Amino acid sequence: MIKLIDGGVTAPKGFSAAHTAAGIKYEGRTDMAMIYSEVPCVTAATFTTNVVKAAPVLFDKKLVDESAPIQAVVCNAGIANACTGKEGYDCCEKSAKAAAEVFGIPENGTLVTSTGVIGMQIPVDKFVAGVKAMKPELKDSREAAHDAALAIMTTDTVPKEVAVEFEIGGKTVKIGAMCKGSGMIHPNMCTMLGFIMTDAAIEKKALQKALSEVIPDTFNMVSVDGDTSTNDTCMVLANGLAENPVITESGEDFELFKKGLFIVNEKMARMMASDGEGATHLYEVVINGAKDKASAVVLAKSVVSSSLCKAAIYGKDANCGRFMCALGYSGIQFDPEIVDIYFESKAGSVAVIQHGVAPLFDEDLALAILSEQEVTVRCEMNCGEATATAWGCDLTYDYVKINADYRS
Amino acid sequence: MIKLIDGGVTAPKGFSAAHTAAGIKYEGRTDMAMIYSEVPCVTAATFTTNVVKAAPVLFDKKLVDESAPIQAVVCNAGIANACTGKEGYDCCEKSAKAAAEVFGIPENGTLVTSTGVIGMQIPVDKFVAGVKAMKPELKDSREAAHDAALAIMTTDTVPKEVAVEFEIGGKTVKIGAMCKGSGMIHPNMCTMLGFIMTDAAIEKKALQKALSEVIPDTFNMVSVDGDTSTNDTCMVLANGLAENPVITESGEDFELFKKGLFIVNEKMARMMASDGEGATHLYEVVINGAKDKASAVVLAKSVVSSSLCKAAIYGKDANCGRFMCALGYSGIQFDPEIVDIYFESKAGSVAVIQHGVAPLFDEDLALAILSEQEVTVRCEMNCGEATATAWGCDLTYDYVKINADYRS
Repeated sequence: MIKLIDGGVTAPKGFSAAHTAAGIKYEGRTDMAMIYSEVPCVTAATFTTNVVKAAPVLFDKKLVDESAPIQAVVCNAGIANACTGKEGYDCCEKSAKAAAEVFGIPENGTLVTSTGVIGMQIPVDKFVAGVKAMKPELKDSREAAHDAALAIMTTDTVPKEVAVEFEIGGKTVKIGAMCKGSGMIHPNMCTMLGFIMTDAAIEKKALQKALSEVIPDTFNMVSVDGDTSTNDTCMVLANGLAENPVITESGEDFELFKKGLFIVNEKMARMMASDGEGATHLYEVVINGAKDKASAVVLAKSVVSSSLCKAAIYGKDANCGRFMCALGYSGIQFDPEIVDIYFESKAGSVAVIQHGVAPLFDEDLALAILSEQEVTVRCEMNCGEATATAWGCDLTYDYVKINADYRS
Repeated sequence: MIKLIDGGVTAPKGFSAAHTAAGIKYEGRTDMAMIYSEVPCVTAATFTTNVVKAAPVLFDKKLVDESAPIQAVVCNAGIANACTGKEGYDCCEKSAKAAAEVFGIPENGTLVTSTGVIGMQIPVDKFVAGVKAMKPELKDSREAAHDAALAIMTTDTVPKEVAVEFEIGGKTVKIGAMCKGSGMIHPNMCTMLGFIMTDAAIEKKALQKALSEVIPDTFNMVSVDGDTSTNDTCMVLANGLAENPVITESGEDFELFKKGLFIVNEKMARMMASDGEGATHLYEVVINGAKDKASAVVLAKSVVSSSLCKAAIYGKDANCGRFMCALGYSGIQFDPEIVDIYFESKAGSVAVIQHGVAPLFDEDLALAILSEQEVTVRCEMNCGEATATAWGCDLTYDYVKINADYRS
């Protein structure tokens, strides 16, 4: 039994959070957050597959790979610290060193993450000052988690948090998370920045396995604009303070923990898609009856990423042919003459393609369906058993506005 | 010596054109065009690779494959005749039959093409009436070609025509062409509708070879929105009336003809990109120094298709990191630390990435460069000799507007 609870990164035992306005790029708002665990954590993470990796991605990957005793995480919004060369990497080292000093933890105990404009250097003095300013502000309250989620936003319009709890071996285990992501979202591995904290006691291998198995069906199925960021990072820190029997790589406890992680990640994936830059709709694509899982994933991503489909969702226009077209150019072979497509939402369901042909359908019903905030396009391939679900958003004037102006 | 000349599909000997307002979907404008050759033509063509193929694509492919004696081409704008099943295919047959009757040519002598909304049936009576109405209006004038190019436009804002002439064996050979394409443009094979007429005498195998070799570097390098249409068709009709020595599959004459075809196709590719839906810029991406041709092509398409890069071009924002990012997620492996990127136009050239890092650059110069209508982003990969060029356009409010409203 997994229960959704109100909370964020401070929901699990032993985690506290802080935020500050460090003035790294933005003015008049908070732009740095910190998460701290009372004890060192077992840590798993996934990073962007972009060949161009931001400095903090390189820095953090090294620490996670060497099973460093992670106890703190710092994040800034405004500058991504990507395409910044040696100076950018030095900034990560200096920041981690500053955190080590203020907390009295080892220099390899802090993960550093950044999001924002690519190609600018972070003013390292401001970053270090931010770390020092946050230390005394750390709190394990609900509010502290919420304020941290606010501080890491860039073009996000809402903070994104989720928490669950469940029992393992008679002990209550919690997972609490926050993430940010709105533009440059087409994760191939995980998306933008996801911070997942848990008080579960779990082996590192099991933690990484759970994360790696959950990511493909959650964060990797989100696309806002087809642009895979240089900074994508999703981390899970487990501090063991729930005192449950240690979770290993298989068995019921592992499956339950993974299920909890899946729920957290799926919620965050939907929140990111729904808050895509300029979005007015959450646009969900469900593929059923594909010949295998890999095909289902490619088909779902092709339809959810199509500019023309996204613009049709924005216009509430039941332009069904565009969805068939996007299935067709996905690169997957199938028989178009047995495909059915439905538009669905709280307002109902309407078949807009039957056996590959557009039938006459109820346009008023279609308009009502597409007028809801959450819209699903369900494609029945009718050639197998595999399924996949992808999440995106519509393409709007505001997406263009945000991205034509972003840097300046 | 290949010379650009003023002209379109009627420039080569023996070709005439006509147009009409058949009222198939649009009102108050012409929506059908016809091209006719005095004598049957040797014909080559390339078609969409989309699994979902429009009825006219299936119909035409069969004729081209069986070396049918093509003498006429009819085209309508407004309805694409895709996702229309048997009824859609019947429409092609009836249209070709009508053309056969009015011209007194075989029933397999007419190619049928359509562009417009997917998922609607063409009113076949109007299409047939249009064919009959155009026959007496056929003219080999410059104006007739221009009017035909106007009639096939959908969201295009300008008609697209080009013609060249050169000598083979002491005879003047001409190639004249028109095309349409503005949205749903990401040709994987050729784009939307390209109609290329030539009076060259050339063997069918040589003609198909020339077309197939030219397409990958021209039409296939255009992307407006990443959506590969169900209707993409590019045809070359050669009627032999130039009376040159017949061109075969190799030798100087073949190379000259292919060069002429390349110039025609490249011009049309640039015209389509420049007239992309809502576009305010022609956005050219040049990849130099890639390790092989296939990598160069993938890198160029990744950068030219990126929504964030396209929005930056619209905003005249020298947001150089987005271009590095789009190289990075292309799927091609490379060393980011040796990459240089330049923004270029008539106004000058500026290095915005050097050895993988964003240097301080002259922002005023960058703004001046990005304010030109034609903008080039040149990426020097510095790891080989291969090059590729792709053409696209910026992502604007108007692209969204056009595509949110298109069907209604």
